[in-house]
Amino acid sequence: MTDDTRAAAEELAERVRDGELRLHELEDHADADAAAAARRLLVEEWSGAPLDSVGDYGFAAEDADANIENMVGAVQVPMGVAGPVTVRGGSLDGERYLPLATTEGALLASVNRGCSVLDDAGGANARVLKSGMTRAPVFRVADVIEAEALVEWVRENRETLREAAEETTSHGELSEVTPYVVGSSVYLRFRYDTKDAMGMNMATIATRAACDVVEDETDASLVALSGNLCSDKKPAAINAIEGRGRSVTADVTVPREVVEERLHTTPEAVAELNTRKNLVGSAKAASLGFNAHVANVVAAMFLATGQDAAQVVEGANAITTAEVRDGGLYVSVSLASLEVGTVGGGTKLPTQAEGLDVLGVRGGGDPAGSNADALAEAIAVGSLAGELSLLSALASRHLSSAHAELGR
Amino acid sequence: MTDDTRAAAEELAERVRDGELRLHELEDHADADAAAAARRLLVEEWSGAPLDSVGDYGFAAEDADANIENMVGAVQVPMGVAGPVTVRGGSLDGERYLPLATTEGALLASVNRGCSVLDDAGGANARVLKSGMTRAPVFRVADVIEAEALVEWVRENRETLREAAEETTSHGELSEVTPYVVGSSVYLRFRYDTKDAMGMNMATIATRAACDVVEDETDASLVALSGNLCSDKKPAAINAIEGRGRSVTADVTVPREVVEERLHTTPEAVAELNTRKNLVGSAKAASLGFNAHVANVVAAMFLATGQDAAQVVEGANAITTAEVRDGGLYVSVSLASLEVGTVGGGTKLPTQAEGLDVLGVRGGGDPAGSNADALAEAIAVGSLAGELSLLSALASRHLSSAHAELGR
Amino acid sequence: MTDDTRAAAEELAERVRDGELRLHELEDHADADAAAAARRLLVEEWSGAPLDSVGDYGFAAEDADANIENMVGAVQVPMGVAGPVTVRGGSLDGERYLPLATTEGALLASVNRGCSVLDDAGGANARVLKSGMTRAPVFRVADVIEAEALVEWVRENRETLREAAEETTSHGELSEVTPYVVGSSVYLRFRYDTKDAMGMNMATIATRAACDVVEDETDASLVALSGNLCSDKKPAAINAIEGRGRSVTADVTVPREVVEERLHTTPEAVAELNTRKNLVGSAKAASLGFNAHVANVVAAMFLATGQDAAQVVEGANAITTAEVRDGGLYVSVSLASLEVGTVGGGTKLPTQAEGLDVLGVRGGGDPAGSNADALAEAIAVGSLAGELSLLSALASRHLSSAHAELGR
Amino acid sequence: MTDDTRAAAEELAERVRDGELRLHELEDHADADAAAAARRLLVEEWSGAPLDSVGDYGFAAEDADANIENMVGAVQVPMGVAGPVTVRGGSLDGERYLPLATTEGALLASVNRGCSVLDDAGGANARVLKSGMTRAPVFRVADVIEAEALVEWVRENRETLREAAEETTSHGELSEVTPYVVGSSVYLRFRYDTKDAMGMNMATIATRAACDVVEDETDASLVALSGNLCSDKKPAAINAIEGRGRSVTADVTVPREVVEERLHTTPEAVAELNTRKNLVGSAKAASLGFNAHVANVVAAMFLATGQDAAQVVEGANAITTAEVRDGGLYVSVSLASLEVGTVGGGTKLPTQAEGLDVLGVRGGGDPAGSNADALAEAIAVGSLAGELSLLSALASRHLSSAHAELGR
Repeated sequence: MTDDTRAAAEELAERVRDGELRLHELEDHADADAAAAARRLLVEEWSGAPLDSVGDYGFAAEDADANIENMVGAVQVPMGVAGPVTVRGGSLDGERYLPLATTEGALLASVNRGCSVLDDAGGANARVLKSGMTRAPVFRVADVIEAEALVEWVRENRETLREAAEETTSHGELSEVTPYVVGSSVYLRFRYDTKDAMGMNMATIATRAACDVVEDETDASLVALSGNLCSDKKPAAINAIEGRGRSVTADVTVPREVVEERLHTTPEAVAELNTRKNLVGSAKAASLGFNAHVANVVAAMFLATGQDAAQVVEGANAITTAEVRDGGLYVSVSLASLEVGTVGGGTKLPTQAEGLDVLGVRGGGDPAGSNADALAEAIAVGSLAGELSLLSALASRHLSSAHAELGR
Repeated sequence: MTDDTRAAAEELAERVRDGELRLHELEDHADADAAAAARRLLVEEWSGAPLDSVGDYGFAAEDADANIENMVGAVQVPMGVAGPVTVRGGSLDGERYLPLATTEGALLASVNRGCSVLDDAGGANARVLKSGMTRAPVFRVADVIEAEALVEWVRENRETLREAAEETTSHGELSEVTPYVVGSSVYLRFRYDTKDAMGMNMATIATRAACDVVEDETDASLVALSGNLCSDKKPAAINAIEGRGRSVTADVTVPREVVEERLHTTPEAVAELNTRKNLVGSAKAASLGFNAHVANVVAAMFLATGQDAAQVVEGANAITTAEVRDGGLYVSVSLASLEVGTVGGGTKLPTQAEGLDVLGVRGGGDPAGSNADALAEAIAVGSLAGELSLLSALASRHLSSAHAELGR
Repeated sequence: MTDDTRAAAEELAERVRDGELRLHELEDHADADAAAAARRLLVEEWSGAPLDSVGDYGFAAEDADANIENMVGAVQVPMGVAGPVTVRGGSLDGERYLPLATTEGALLASVNRGCSVLDDAGGANARVLKSGMTRAPVFRVADVIEAEALVEWVRENRETLREAAEETTSHGELSEVTPYVVGSSVYLRFRYDTKDAMGMNMATIATRAACDVVEDETDASLVALSGNLCSDKKPAAINAIEGRGRSVTADVTVPREVVEERLHTTPEAVAELNTRKNLVGSAKAASLGFNAHVANVVAAMFLATGQDAAQVVEGANAITTAEVRDGGLYVSVSLASLEVGTVGGGTKLPTQAEGLDVLGVRGGGDPAGSNADALAEAIAVGSLAGELSLLSALASRHLSSAHAELGR
Repeated sequence: MTDDTRAAAEELAERVRDGELRLHELEDHADADAAAAARRLLVEEWSGAPLDSVGDYGFAAEDADANIENMVGAVQVPMGVAGPVTVRGGSLDGERYLPLATTEGALLASVNRGCSVLDDAGGANARVLKSGMTRAPVFRVADVIEAEALVEWVRENRETLREAAEETTSHGELSEVTPYVVGSSVYLRFRYDTKDAMGMNMATIATRAACDVVEDETDASLVALSGNLCSDKKPAAINAIEGRGRSVTADVTVPREVVEERLHTTPEAVAELNTRKNLVGSAKAASLGFNAHVANVVAAMFLATGQDAAQVVEGANAITTAEVRDGGLYVSVSLASLEVGTVGGGTKLPTQAEGLDVLGVRGGGDPAGSNADALAEAIAVGSLAGELSLLSALASRHLSSAHAELGR
């Protein structure tokens, strides 16, 4: 922090103490770094907490103005790499290091071991099998007769809705509008191809325009632009079944000798464990996540690449399968609703942009959408590595010893 | 980075290039910062990605050795504060700034607005109503007759299991062991009071000791130390129903004039919207999350306070209710399975420790467990602020304009 | 039973005792009634149970040969009527008595009271909003690359699949094929318009023909003709969300004075109770059924009209809403997956055919499908009556007294 | 029908036509059979439907007065037997014929084949592993502070609640009260041992008494005696996880040669099919039912033994597992929430009582509860037979041919 910034911060802080300014107005009266410094001063006074480390961030505060308000600094999450691992994806092809940011000891070592085994098996396949960002407004109608009329109207006016929606965006394309009726509430689930953007904002803005048309042309009234059939940042079966963002699968067949020598277990043991834990255990838990710890990899790669951490929720909707195949071990991970982008959101921040660069997927892809597809494939392969490693560790019984050694 | 570190890093990198060392072995041959620097050199060469920003981290790498392996640096996530807000909790009492780290524009502004409204309403209530960290190993038995015998044995030997489990920990207490049978798989769900620790490692280690006793004393064989009825980092009804970590509720009644003047809507409109979106919409989506965006606040406060980002998954198991009461607006948020700790894990890292300090909940509480309870209450109140703000914004129709203005 | 039948039965029984015939072969050696009588003799001997009442059935056993094997007689379930009630449906229009068969005391009285209130409110609306019977075979593929190829092939060959499927049926039409991929398993969800038939057999046979084409033309291997994404007779979110059979809603607005005088409660009390019980309570129970007792009406009307009793499971996927509207009470019931038919299955048995006749919906409708739609609407209105009555009873606190009086 | 009955019926009908009596009042003015006959006359006039078959029932109408109101007669559902099959249960031991009533062709043949294979394998194991009928009222509290107080009060006053509840019943015992809090709604899940009764009425009446105490002693107000955390007749994870009624498992190991010769498939094929269909397929469908068609057997045995047909819903919460074991095929079925009784409800009706007699489980057991346990075990074994048979049929690919041959 320069002396000028410090001086500006102290002046701002004083004006807040005097009741002249409010905490969220500081950027209107000084540069963003001074505003953040002023907030640190005030919060330190208030709470007694030192904020030196938080204040020691490595980017210009104004570069984060699209990412945060009331900024005081940055939190630092340790980042490591796993790999390299060979990915044979539809959009990502070749060897890659996988960047992961986490505070959970042993996670990176586990994924790293998995990557190494994937490579011993010749690399992992990955494919994005479905794609589309959704937004589902809810409308109020008088009764089921009016609901029927709205459903009918939507069926006959998709083109009108598409035009209205797409006028708001240069990239996004409306691919589908599906109506759901519950009593006097009608939900329209709009699905968009948002290319390399994660696409929530794009989908929201486009849907708002389409809603205006619905309200103009029918008797329905918009209650909320999001009616939870989207469904964003909630664990919901609709996403686990129909997908949201990217639906992506990675798989591999690991030769028996690799399983035995590298993972100290057998294909049979891993397959049985996967059935009893990931399939039957999750069934009994009434879960949407039939996996061991996919969310760990999703969270760590989301943080390392500037994705929305709250969308780890949908990222956990994953099914892991394991079967003995020709004496070896086939393992797959299918993530139903992985919401990723390589443009917008947190992807422009310096450390996150470097995370994307490590994978070679920063910015818009060519063709459009291919970078976000590639990122999804990378995360799927990282998840596969994590599943393979943890399932094997459990099968050979050293889960808590791994934590004991590596995780404190 | 000092010149010494740089030199050591270059030497290490050379030895990796030569095949003499592997990427995860560097800490054995140099200090942790040099090892990280060496990895950056190698990953930069490999991927062409610059890692300058990632390398510009503000802590000693060796201080993160319990949090990560194969470290290359740190990712920086912008952090801000919302509030202050008055919390009337069971463990947290008084005014607090809430620290949130996020890259999603408009989130902090939204929570901040919610906090301000909570304060206009006299502050928010919060209570932890249930607490306990779970781990559920799965055992193989011959058949249902052996399953019955195991269930019976567990019922009769809880004290033995408790002793075995608690021998491994100075703080943790085993409070419950619940058996679930599916064919030849028997799951024992151990629940622990882990005080101020989030407690996964403690629960895992203690359960391993208990499993040894089960295997010694019965015919059952341990298949996996985690059988997914725990259920960790998966969206699972068992957590949404029975709780995991802290089950915590926050609520408030906002006077009508505050709703109208500050939120530009009415109690009736918010209550209707909550029903159509959060209750009926989530019902139709077959969701475990009956809320608007609780995961946003959970994720941001988890990052700011060193929690496990993958556990945002369970944090999203939340139900928001809204009702008109005496002309005003009663709103509540109940988070069933919020897994938090104020010791261990990422809580010791400098920026995260400062985040905890802002709330005044760093380290072990007095009585033990009260700091983690207080953190849970703070997050519940932050979630309440976020729900109140977003629901009102939707009711007054400026969701995507808020994003348009604030979120780029 | 005639003397001839009795004699034939005794002879058959003797041949079974002698080990000459097996129990399921009797129809090959005598008429169906004698075969049933012989089985009764044998089962009576074996178990000591008298089977006189079971043997006193009112149809020719051979007329049930498409409905049962190893017949011994029939079980008799008491049947009553509720109503009349005015239905304003898309296919069913006018006043109807609703036939219900049940052994649960107080149910019929409750539905009857609800019907009476519906009529005081001018009758109930009802609409079928979506329709289609599904069958989802599962195929094995080598890996995700082959999965992608199969998904692509399906997209490009829908017409071929349609032709193959429709060749097996004179009525059914294939409307949709949706692929879902999990690792090396690919599920194709076929959806058919099966007109007045419930349609499971039709869908199964048609899908088998389509599967032959898939196996001929691709590398995929059929594992099972049903892969549980259908999903038949299991509680599954896919049905609750996307529908199966008929998706049907009924609703009504009951004037305040009717609520107060007939139901002894208020619109406000019912709306609050519906929220706390059917919405929030079911949310906390992680349920797919957000209603009070829709399954009661579905089960009773299914039995009375020859539907498949096991499909009560999907019939319970229903959401009930209640809101105060202009001082009155709006109530709706939306059944997502009501699987009904008016031809085939149990609909031809004499008592069941009479049940359909009471509603005026027996046999094929004109246009095709309209009778099954009408039946769905009748059940939805019956469910609405049941919900209205039970919610009101709970609100005025006489649930268990009703049972105490009526149900013993 | 006697001439007297007919004359009385005609007189009653005339009085209804004259507006002097209402349809549900007839039993006050004549005997129950005449009342039913009068209703048939009136409904026939109204609808044009003949009701001769419905009117041809085999019991005294007054004997069904606890089962139905507004009776017009009875529906007849064909009943058959499968077996005999050897059951090695905790309460049911020995060979039994299983009674099933259904209109779905091929079902009985399928279960019968399964029973035969079970016997070739030496019979099936069965055990009730958990038991208890639940009722969960919902209370309104002011806020979370009052919710905490109520939870605390319940913890400290279980004995008081137990006394109040048990005063209402001579058999039932209160075993557990578990509180769940969502905002200002508190749900208390009461669990009872109801012995041989299915127990809903008993649980409801006892809970009402306990609720009176709660209202007297705390600030909470009862909103509804059932708050849907019970959860009755809805597909709910709470039942699938924690059980309701009986939690019962049946299993068997079928030698390889039996699988090959009798079922025309292999243990490996069945195990794979079970994984892809019942585990992975149901996982992807977000189902609570991980089985093939357990509901078919539950429904058919429920009808044959006088159980509540609407509770087939919870009966479908079942998980089927299959594994290759020593070259043979181990199969299990675990029904989490099978609600059965051998006294009360429909069990006294003549045909249903005979159904119970076939199993030897009619009336109260010795010890109390053992008859209902035995019935649960019989249904579990029937379900196991049905699963084994259908999975094998699918594996050997003749599902729709079976229907084609047997089911029309």
